Amino acid sequence: MPASRLVTAGPYTDFGERVLLAHGVPAADARLLSDSLVRAELWGHSSHGMLRLPWYTARLRSGAMRAVTEPEVVSDSGTMLVLDGRDGIGQVLTANAVEEGVRRAREHTLSGVAVRNSNHFGTAAYFTRRAAEQGCVAILATNASPAMAPWGGKEKSIGTNPWSLAAPGGRYGPVVMDIANTAVARGKIYLAGEREEPIPEGWAADSEGRPTTDPRKAVDGLILPMAGHKGYVISFMFDVLAGVLTGSAFGSSVVGPYSPEGRSGCGHLLLTIDVASMADTGEFTRRVEALVEETKAVPLAADATEILYPGELEERNERERLRTGIPVADQTWAALERLARETSVPLPEPLAP
Amino acid sequence: MPASRLVTAGPYTDFGERVLLAHGVPAADARLLSDSLVRAELWGHSSHGMLRLPWYTARLRSGAMRAVTEPEVVSDSGTMLVLDGRDGIGQVLTANAVEEGVRRAREHTLSGVAVRNSNHFGTAAYFTRRAAEQGCVAILATNASPAMAPWGGKEKSIGTNPWSLAAPGGRYGPVVMDIANTAVARGKIYLAGEREEPIPEGWAADSEGRPTTDPRKAVDGLILPMAGHKGYVISFMFDVLAGVLTGSAFGSSVVGPYSPEGRSGCGHLLLTIDVASMADTGEFTRRVEALVEETKAVPLAADATEILYPGELEERNERERLRTGIPVADQTWAALERLARETSVPLPEPLAP
Repeated sequence: MPASRLVTAGPYTDFGERVLLAHGVPAADARLLSDSLVRAELWGHSSHGMLRLPWYTARLRSGAMRAVTEPEVVSDSGTMLVLDGRDGIGQVLTANAVEEGVRRAREHTLSGVAVRNSNHFGTAAYFTRRAAEQGCVAILATNASPAMAPWGGKEKSIGTNPWSLAAPGGRYGPVVMDIANTAVARGKIYLAGEREEPIPEGWAADSEGRPTTDPRKAVDGLILPMAGHKGYVISFMFDVLAGVLTGSAFGSSVVGPYSPEGRSGCGHLLLTIDVASMADTGEFTRRVEALVEETKAVPLAADATEILYPGELEERNERERLRTGIPVADQTWAALERLARETSVPLPEPLAP
Repeated sequence: MPASRLVTAGPYTDFGERVLLAHGVPAADARLLSDSLVRAELWGHSSHGMLRLPWYTARLRSGAMRAVTEPEVVSDSGTMLVLDGRDGIGQVLTANAVEEGVRRAREHTLSGVAVRNSNHFGTAAYFTRRAAEQGCVAILATNASPAMAPWGGKEKSIGTNPWSLAAPGGRYGPVVMDIANTAVARGKIYLAGEREEPIPEGWAADSEGRPTTDPRKAVDGLILPMAGHKGYVISFMFDVLAGVLTGSAFGSSVVGPYSPEGRSGCGHLLLTIDVASMADTGEFTRRVEALVEETKAVPLAADATEILYPGELEERNERERLRTGIPVADQTWAALERLARETSVPLPEPLAP
């Protein structure tokens, strides 16, 4: 990775927080949003990391995203809460959804929180992990701005619509899955563009539908669904859950975080199950651990060195990067320098030249 | 397709029903199981159709699957029902779960039904469509017998673990997604084997991990996950939900319908949301219809003739095959002839030579 510097997580988070404060975001919300970006960096997903801070501030400045998040209750049946995010910050709304979801799952065994008129919440696993750490199984789905064509089409109308499942994993920490339904997360193409690196074949097509390895052409073209038509139908259905059912925008009407203007209309659906309300938690934990251990003990394929359980790589990266620092690509650093100048918030001192 | 005959759905269903009756399955359950198989045929998924009837009867004869399905309530919090299927018929248990799930969703907005010690339920969409037809959004997950290696492994320990999402689709009927997390449903490889046809590259590897197009080698080898590691992590997590959380078997302990012996230990988790309890159904319907229409109106890619919404192909196939009949492959017919002799139930008269 062509990163010419390393920064430590704490000061990096402080920087993001202060930049957001300077844009009128309340302290706790600024901390949360910045932490979610730096956590993505720690997990090794820099595509969802501080690269995005300037995008968020651009949306705050234009007024497309409101600095002060004030959700409104649309309806509340106890088990199902429907919130209108009123164009607030997606991360703040989703963290709030997790808090409500866990509390309600403890009371009713399972609960749902639907959020409409939110903004893209960043990394889904940031939120489902929180629920898992509190003893819950969580399913989180969101829609997103158009990123791929429906199967057989040549214009994008369907979002990547990421979704995540997480569960408590005993001594292994949460087991967590977090994927976009495209062959690749769109952020990875932006990151490749920033780094001026080609993208692998099979990730994307240009605006005419021709396969391309040029990230700039891919940004203007089509990202392909994962697993062919399967990725398309999964994404379509999660739009029905996260967009249509929640009363939010859906299909091509959702505006992404990449655009400095335009209300997002992004919707989320969180389903939470309290493990202790339906199973013996000790027994559940032993069973998840057994599944992890059985899986990791499978004989290795010829060119493999290890089998990882879902979420293991992120946990390992976090431990490592808390120690060694977070690598920052040149273009990301340059964008953050601009932001630092504009807000008079000093950038953290890099660890390495 | 090398089918030398066509049969009509009604008599085909009657045949399956009578064969199951002869194995001690109660009338309503025999009808349901046979209907689920013939419905898969109508949808064009013969891999999940009558090909499987002899597999089910073999399991009934060995006692691995009990002819009389008598579930026991493990726990019931109102919103979450946990059932022990006591090795009954998966389709019967899952249809029961849908009935309970819809009733409870109407009362609580959303509900969960966990089923342990079931058997493979066949086609997930058969059940989620039922919930959607009753105005509900349904999420159904199951685990299944080992079919693929974890990412980096060379021995299978993870099931295909199919899952389905369905929602009411207004004038389009339910919108439905139903996939296995393997590059291809295992049944399609069995079907290719029966038809003595090679399978496409990328579907499977042999027992040494070498890619193969021979369906017989693939059956003894490895089916690859869809979308590379993504299919692996999705399947792992659905095993946590459908196997671990429900208190059923999980990982390599699940026995599939392909084996005439051995308790299955298959587990299912159904989550149901009553649309009317959280949204205006007229508005919801109009929004789903708008999403379908927007998606189908996307300009076509060079080699495409039409864009289909999820579930459209199955609905179209059903209309067509109800009119023209269901094609039956030679090996399937031969297996059904044996079953007909053994049970003295006459096979339906084919429509075409």
